[in-house]
Amino acid sequence: MSLAISEAWKYQILTYPNPAVGCVVLDKNGKILSVAAHKKAGSLHAEPSAILMALCELSPDFLRNFLNAYNLKFNTDFSDIDCVELLEPNFTYDFILKNHQNLLKDAKAYVTLEPCSHHGKTPPCATLLSALKFKEVVIACSDENKIASGGAQILKNADISVKMGVCKTEANTLLEPFLSWQGGNFSFLKVAMSTNGVATGGLISNELSRAHMHLLRSVCDLLVVGGNTVRIDRPTLDTRLMGNQKSPNVLIYSKSQKFDKTIPLFGVKNRSVKISNELSNLDARLIMFEGAQSFLELAKARKLADVKWLLIYQSSEFKEGKNIELSLKTDPLFSLKFGGNTLWWARIR
Amino acid sequence: MSLAISEAWKYQILTYPNPAVGCVVLDKNGKILSVAAHKKAGSLHAEPSAILMALCELSPDFLRNFLNAYNLKFNTDFSDIDCVELLEPNFTYDFILKNHQNLLKDAKAYVTLEPCSHHGKTPPCATLLSALKFKEVVIACSDENKIASGGAQILKNADISVKMGVCKTEANTLLEPFLSWQGGNFSFLKVAMSTNGVATGGLISNELSRAHMHLLRSVCDLLVVGGNTVRIDRPTLDTRLMGNQKSPNVLIYSKSQKFDKTIPLFGVKNRSVKISNELSNLDARLIMFEGAQSFLELAKARKLADVKWLLIYQSSEFKEGKNIELSLKTDPLFSLKFGGNTLWWARIR
Repeated sequence: MSLAISEAWKYQILTYPNPAVGCVVLDKNGKILSVAAHKKAGSLHAEPSAILMALCELSPDFLRNFLNAYNLKFNTDFSDIDCVELLEPNFTYDFILKNHQNLLKDAKAYVTLEPCSHHGKTPPCATLLSALKFKEVVIACSDENKIASGGAQILKNADISVKMGVCKTEANTLLEPFLSWQGGNFSFLKVAMSTNGVATGGLISNELSRAHMHLLRSVCDLLVVGGNTVRIDRPTLDTRLMGNQKSPNVLIYSKSQKFDKTIPLFGVKNRSVKISNELSNLDARLIMFEGAQSFLELAKARKLADVKWLLIYQSSEFKEGKNIELSLKTDPLFSLKFGGNTLWWARIR
Repeated sequence: MSLAISEAWKYQILTYPNPAVGCVVLDKNGKILSVAAHKKAGSLHAEPSAILMALCELSPDFLRNFLNAYNLKFNTDFSDIDCVELLEPNFTYDFILKNHQNLLKDAKAYVTLEPCSHHGKTPPCATLLSALKFKEVVIACSDENKIASGGAQILKNADISVKMGVCKTEANTLLEPFLSWQGGNFSFLKVAMSTNGVATGGLISNELSRAHMHLLRSVCDLLVVGGNTVRIDRPTLDTRLMGNQKSPNVLIYSKSQKFDKTIPLFGVKNRSVKISNELSNLDARLIMFEGAQSFLELAKARKLADVKWLLIYQSSEFKEGKNIELSLKTDPLFSLKFGGNTLWWARIR
């Protein structure tokens, strides 16, 4: 379950408006066959992703047949299934149903969230696990969402042994953003700094970190940035490292409305930019604050909207310069390496 | 193999003068049974540790019998085998040989270093793997040590399939300190700092980090610390958090020989303290530098003996104060969580 939870954390927020979910599939002897996560709304859920990968691991024939059929149908040229988030989910789901050859009979799955029971953009995961005759499904959190819940019952009806509540606390933390934006909105503060706390003086993060950040921007409804940062850094705040997906709307937090409109962020297409010195009642469900010293001070004082989580990109480099200087305790939630950089999520204490 | 390497990294340096080694055992179906590392010179090697844990995982009877026999023989009261480093290695090794009941026949092991072939403080690991009829042993690095090498040949002679060189680069990095102190000495620089680079103003690290650091001190031959640190912090530099194991000798790097001898470090038993402004030709095989700004600057200029590795304990806290200020690029090698703290090894670029 720890593996499933870690895998899901890698795509935290990126699954918006869906929850981050991870799944591990083991064969009947307990060998781990696959570790997968839901990566993006509209793409395969964690369970069919893990099932697909497990079938490909068990049977080179299954993999070859799947890729042949897929490439033929969609005129693509996949040579592997590394990018499950790019696969058309319904075709993939159907292919699994028709071609699994009972390879996963008596297998075991660990899922961080109760498998869904409803036909959304993809068919129900609980039905798939049942059809493939899994023996046991271990679930961390039950799904309280009225539309998608009931998965555990579907499994039980198919004589699958269901175990609930394994690593529940950790999985609940993983789900926090989802539960927040379901009931209203979720906000977090992103900070990039060197290993010795310097957040100024040009690029801090490496390309992988910045690409991840651009991906985050592409799913956020609103980006909030400080007026001084805009004046000094003259940022674009777009998603160019991720193929210019949709760039989020921007709110510049500033008392003065005066900005040089040649600053690139104003020129990004399909984006609204507001300037305001008001941070309450932001009309957006998923909000990323980008900042450092002053936003951290506001967050510490609980005056940065309802930001409780930090996302820190930290390089492994000591950088000349003054550090972010404040006292603030945090509880780390998850960390991930991007080359020499570390991304970590933390809760402000 | 990645799992085996990570497990070994957790005990990096602590195995001195032995190498850090990790081992993973899988059953004949590919299910992971155990992940273990060599933790301390004189204690069980990684392979018998992993084998013991695998047998206990496979058979509750084996575990019960082992603990009964062990507690009876050594008048101890172990209720589990969590602390394999505390077990008497020869008894444990013999017990495995006599009681394995072929439970690991056709099993598979991943080892980061070629299993040893010689009777040192413990009997040869290659012989144990052969006696238990493993089917396959995957090895990252061959052992170039003339005394201990030849393990792969023993395995092959027992009809075990041997695969060499998997994750060789990563395993070679893991071995670097061992190879250095075998041929002379190994030095590293330890720094403790907050997440925003503050290394001053009282305690930085949590209890787990400090206990780990005391354990490191207990294996080091020499601790080098700056004169100003001694004058300002008045440290003890002992191993009190690890039950007062042997405290290392201390070299205070200082031009002036004048120190207040009531500073606690001078009062630690069985320790020599030298004061010197010379850092070359330090007469010790394993040397830990404890410092921050000034030692980092010396290390950057390649003037801190032959320090190439940093060990950083970093808290998740933003701390009021000035940061360590220099520019220095590093390549992270391994990181580990100690509660809210992160320990990370890095190579100075």
